[in-house]
Amino acid sequence: MKFAQLGPIGAEIPALVTDSATYDLRAITAKIDGAFLESGIPEAQRLLDAGELPVLDGAAEMRIGAPIARPSALVCVGMNYAAHAAESGSAPPENMVIFNKLPNTVVGPNDVVVIPKGSVKTDWEVELGIVIGKRASYIESLEAAEDYIAGYVVVNDLSERTWQIELSGGQWGKGKSAPGFSPTGPWLVTRDEIDAQNVRLRSSVNGETRQDSTTADMIFSIAHIVHELSQYMVLEPGDLVLTGTPEGVALSGRFPYLAAGDVVEVSIEGLGGQRQEYVAYEEAN
Amino acid sequence: MKFAQLGPIGAEIPALVTDSATYDLRAITAKIDGAFLESGIPEAQRLLDAGELPVLDGAAEMRIGAPIARPSALVCVGMNYAAHAAESGSAPPENMVIFNKLPNTVVGPNDVVVIPKGSVKTDWEVELGIVIGKRASYIESLEAAEDYIAGYVVVNDLSERTWQIELSGGQWGKGKSAPGFSPTGPWLVTRDEIDAQNVRLRSSVNGETRQDSTTADMIFSIAHIVHELSQYMVLEPGDLVLTGTPEGVALSGRFPYLAAGDVVEVSIEGLGGQRQEYVAYEEAN
Repeated sequence: MKFAQLGPIGAEIPALVTDSATYDLRAITAKIDGAFLESGIPEAQRLLDAGELPVLDGAAEMRIGAPIARPSALVCVGMNYAAHAAESGSAPPENMVIFNKLPNTVVGPNDVVVIPKGSVKTDWEVELGIVIGKRASYIESLEAAEDYIAGYVVVNDLSERTWQIELSGGQWGKGKSAPGFSPTGPWLVTRDEIDAQNVRLRSSVNGETRQDSTTADMIFSIAHIVHELSQYMVLEPGDLVLTGTPEGVALSGRFPYLAAGDVVEVSIEGLGGQRQEYVAYEEAN
Repeated sequence: MKFAQLGPIGAEIPALVTDSATYDLRAITAKIDGAFLESGIPEAQRLLDAGELPVLDGAAEMRIGAPIARPSALVCVGMNYAAHAAESGSAPPENMVIFNKLPNTVVGPNDVVVIPKGSVKTDWEVELGIVIGKRASYIESLEAAEDYIAGYVVVNDLSERTWQIELSGGQWGKGKSAPGFSPTGPWLVTRDEIDAQNVRLRSSVNGETRQDSTTADMIFSIAHIVHELSQYMVLEPGDLVLTGTPEGVALSGRFPYLAAGDVVEVSIEGLGGQRQEYVAYEEAN
């Protein structure tokens, strides 16, 4: 199934998206949140099958929000594609590298992005996002990890490289949590509908391709990531885990950083695409 | 004023603590959360002054929970005391170093701590915690930063050093978010009641002193931290910011790491004290 949240910021309507229509889920949940993902999907399916879900009028004209409620945690895997590690000046990691973004950076996939005040190195990163479906703590095996995944989303893991690398003392979080730095969506696609370890992911700036790779190239697989994270922390339903970005970002030195007026598009096969216009802080404030 | 949350896990009662009694705040808020901290404190004061707050019966026998609801973000400043940077093998940072813990690590100050499965290097860190009182984004000056602070708490910023340092690829978060790794409280003390930049903070293990320093020794001051963080991210009411730990942790090599049966006490002058018993994962599961 494919879920979305549509409408103005802070007043998004939870929706189920099919090839033929978009349905309003407000009768069964207020948000696409952890509680819904953990236990509400079968009821959505039942109502859909029974023809009892109301069509959401005007869905095509609505703003697309992030397809999940604000998570309790946003955990990111770094350097998870060998070619990206190389372009960043690093060897492929022997151990999984993790860092966090603030959950309040999650915004709609097409919302305008304000380049942070003072930023000169705002950079894009297309990433496959894993949405957790049930509480995950000390998962026993790689094979069991999939049971903890509700589905997948596209995320643009935006970064400010001066803050992340040059002024950070080595801890990346400083450059990862500016307002609006995690455009997410358009859809949450349930795990049964996508072969997530084998899909193409792409980004472009002003129509020129920047990243074009496949999730098959991950160093640590989706199952590995979820299993290993659960040994170090408790993931909760609705939490978002980013799986790293492939080569082709500005940090490589091959492309300019983002500037006001730029348009970034990111997409993952089966999960939809995003399009963001970038504006200067001074212009937006 | 001094706030607490008392009662069983998940069913804590918000309370106001005075020298003479503990009062039940449920008539005005369900939790000591961001909304209460942003706008509810004057009403609590008014009801207290008017003698209209009910006493919380049996408060002295209740479990003490963390004195704040789960934050939306838990942001930590690393290496913020020069002697601790030195004992960790680092020079004092030129730029503020920040990382995150998962918000679900926040637990009561005296809750039993389960040493994580497989951990051999669980370490203590007494820290002054700043609780944010209103939305902070691009604060204009150091002088303005204090207005964004609701109050202060004691936090034991527990770490698993193997995961944080040896298996992390350099990003510390892996060793910072095990279940129960942020004992918080007992009280939230509002900023007017404490000279937070000049208080003694201490820790001990099994009665032997480990840390004994003063918040006056911070490299980056409380005002500096809140101001600078707001340039990189949006802090929200109820968020928790940890300000770093002074020298005297096991990572220094001078003391053994924590083992089952150990008792850790941490305290900060004016903010109260914590006492945790440590148990093995196998014992608790």
